[in-house]
Amino acid sequence: MSTPAESSSSSATSIGQAAKSAFERSQLIPTTERITALEAICTQLEAARESIFEANKLDLQAAQVEVNAGRMSESVKKRLDLTSTDKWSSMIQGVRDVAALPDPAGNVTYASQLHDDLELYRVSCPIGVLLVIFEARPEVVVNIAALAIKSGNAAILKGGKESHHTTALLAQAIATGLSQTQIPAEFIQTIQTRAEVSSLLQLDQYIDLVIPRGSNSLVKNIQNNTRIPVMGHADGICHVYLDESADAVKAVRVVVDSKTSYPSACNSAETLLIHESLLSTIWPKVATALLERDVKLQCDEPSITALQNHIPSDPRFPSHVSPSNPESYGTEFLTLTLSIATVPSLHSAIRFVNLHSSHHTDTIVTESPSSASLFCRGVDSAGTFINASTRFADGFRYGFGTEVGISTGRIHARGPVGLEGLVTYKYMLRSRAEDGHIADEFGAGEGQKRFTHTKIEAADVPFL
Amino acid sequence: MSTPAESSSSSATSIGQAAKSAFERSQLIPTTERITALEAICTQLEAARESIFEANKLDLQAAQVEVNAGRMSESVKKRLDLTSTDKWSSMIQGVRDVAALPDPAGNVTYASQLHDDLELYRVSCPIGVLLVIFEARPEVVVNIAALAIKSGNAAILKGGKESHHTTALLAQAIATGLSQTQIPAEFIQTIQTRAEVSSLLQLDQYIDLVIPRGSNSLVKNIQNNTRIPVMGHADGICHVYLDESADAVKAVRVVVDSKTSYPSACNSAETLLIHESLLSTIWPKVATALLERDVKLQCDEPSITALQNHIPSDPRFPSHVSPSNPESYGTEFLTLTLSIATVPSLHSAIRFVNLHSSHHTDTIVTESPSSASLFCRGVDSAGTFINASTRFADGFRYGFGTEVGISTGRIHARGPVGLEGLVTYKYMLRSRAEDGHIADEFGAGEGQKRFTHTKIEAADVPFL
Repeated sequence: MSTPAESSSSSATSIGQAAKSAFERSQLIPTTERITALEAICTQLEAARESIFEANKLDLQAAQVEVNAGRMSESVKKRLDLTSTDKWSSMIQGVRDVAALPDPAGNVTYASQLHDDLELYRVSCPIGVLLVIFEARPEVVVNIAALAIKSGNAAILKGGKESHHTTALLAQAIATGLSQTQIPAEFIQTIQTRAEVSSLLQLDQYIDLVIPRGSNSLVKNIQNNTRIPVMGHADGICHVYLDESADAVKAVRVVVDSKTSYPSACNSAETLLIHESLLSTIWPKVATALLERDVKLQCDEPSITALQNHIPSDPRFPSHVSPSNPESYGTEFLTLTLSIATVPSLHSAIRFVNLHSSHHTDTIVTESPSSASLFCRGVDSAGTFINASTRFADGFRYGFGTEVGISTGRIHARGPVGLEGLVTYKYMLRSRAEDGHIADEFGAGEGQKRFTHTKIEAADVPFL
Repeated sequence: MSTPAESSSSSATSIGQAAKSAFERSQLIPTTERITALEAICTQLEAARESIFEANKLDLQAAQVEVNAGRMSESVKKRLDLTSTDKWSSMIQGVRDVAALPDPAGNVTYASQLHDDLELYRVSCPIGVLLVIFEARPEVVVNIAALAIKSGNAAILKGGKESHHTTALLAQAIATGLSQTQIPAEFIQTIQTRAEVSSLLQLDQYIDLVIPRGSNSLVKNIQNNTRIPVMGHADGICHVYLDESADAVKAVRVVVDSKTSYPSACNSAETLLIHESLLSTIWPKVATALLERDVKLQCDEPSITALQNHIPSDPRFPSHVSPSNPESYGTEFLTLTLSIATVPSLHSAIRFVNLHSSHHTDTIVTESPSSASLFCRGVDSAGTFINASTRFADGFRYGFGTEVGISTGRIHARGPVGLEGLVTYKYMLRSRAEDGHIADEFGAGEGQKRFTHTKIEAADVPFL
């Protein structure tokens, strides 16, 4: 008899093999089938709406028991709800929007004639098999399936167990939609158990990219337990730096928006850096605006002293202002709490950011072009902003049409990732010479062929 | 007292920290300093030539002892020799060539006006800190230092212990060259021990990319022992497939060149796939040409039977033709040995390649445009070729000017990698509005701002 661990490992192997095989077979199918599949999935989802809503009610009832027992927060329960507001219609519209985006695969990004009748094309293509792990929100299964199908990647999806009634029916609608096309049924698979995830994370022969979407601990746990590349971010520790030359109005607006417009988002600011020359001028104004928005301030010694001198009678002072400690910096509060540090120079600010930032997005408020330039070059983050809120770091706001996630890694994709993040490329080389092309004929010697390396203008590969 | 392991771990931490700090500081220095540094390094190398050659003699003498004792091959010893042929002048010219290449950093690859006076630029930039591990050839320290400096990446280099006298002096010339510029001295560091490598492979907070250049076992060992992204390839198991419609002349030329022009290269063919319809026509011709080049053939049953029927009297038959076994496929021979398999169809060939290939480069010999198209789409390798030798898979032949390595991974860079493989990108967002830009003002509601997402034509960032 096999142990549960052995059984999930053998099941994971079958799932991985099936996904890889489905991916490989799908590459021989016309890409128009991908659009057909997305349309069919929308139709199936619409047809199954009532039963999906019933399943969602079951998940919500189970969640209510957890909330009552104090084991789940109201906000997590709310994320499970697919029936409220316009979530359902947004989800369906999202699939249609993805279908309408330009194809990220099949685009030539480099083409060169190496020699007469010898043409090289670098062409974008799907990566292979994605393993996507997410929590709570059941609609993510549909979002991710749409992105995977559009980009030509097979996917294995694991949702949270809290939404399993809902995701089971969503997955069934996706499978039924796919079955109406030539795309193999195993192109999109869903799995249920953590044991299967653990086993799949070891199968780098089948899985090409892992995309965790969820809490810091989920992402860190995955990053620490696989050799497969992981795309995503654990922390979002963003900084706003008020430069010596900062404008007061911009400073107040950018800091307040970066901190308060959506505190639990990864692109919200967690730390404010202040050039010491601003302690008695702009800083009290910024602090007042933050306190008016109920923000709690963890201040270093110079910044707290400045507030004691300049806004000592603010009624929120006792409850909202406290001294910072070393842990205040580099913490992702995700709430209305902001840590403050004073710096003597721009260079010191850059060093501070590089030391404490999660390399997500950091912004400078400045009127000085040279400070802006140094900050953008010196801060080693996916986003470096000038007089703009960190909250703009987002795939939709950047104009990508959709967002796969936000990556704080430097390899492959960085920052907000659109469909482009789900493709790689391959090189295709075609000889049209009468006797083909062989490498041995090329060289620097007399009578040998020379490479010409002439650029070819091409948007796609002519022989595909 | 600290143990050796603790000591190399603390030394590795210092090296990693110093590299990261040097990288961060270097980003504030004008990029023209990188060219100045490369020129200064050439000057220093030329000045130190005699002493470097003396050091090289010491390494060669030590190597001779190893060769005499049977612990080192002649070919490894030969790779250590920096004084023979034009190796020295090629090395120096290589640095000048790299200096003359276009800057891979600072290029805008996406630019969009998100709203009036709010401009987004995606700009290529160095990755950070590279850890490069290589064997034998001492000149690699100079090649890699040049690539790192040109692309703006700090690097930690570990050469083989067999060349340590030579690499020590090469590293000293590099350091002296760098010291004549504003680039920090720790921008290029060299390390000596495997213990330091092991410790550095754990330091993903300082090291951003590992590039192993050497044997299969070196690469596999590194891939298995780090969470840091690794760029490179372990195996090079390339296939040639002779399609039903293959032309005999092309078949012979492409197979012979792919196998014999440089058997120990990673882009040489290891397996030949033959459509069953060619067994009595083209296959005997190809086999004869291979036997004439002293190639040993490991054949499946149909292909060996065909040879028994068609070229039974070839004198090399007894010594050079043998039955294959399952291990014959998926083996990187690196010698004049080729495994042969017969397939009933193109689809079957594609499945065979995807199962056994190392996803490096595979080629089809065909006169059929539809077979060519299916092969190129269906084979999941970095290079898919038509009527051309696998040996063309090479950065110089592709026209990249230089080659960092060849990647069989799908993430970040794939196939032969030029300087582009040493850069990532970041997003820079600048508001020029009077009061800056905040996200809270944007939305679908009345009076809210809308994103415009208008393309900006820009080759570089105007405010850097």
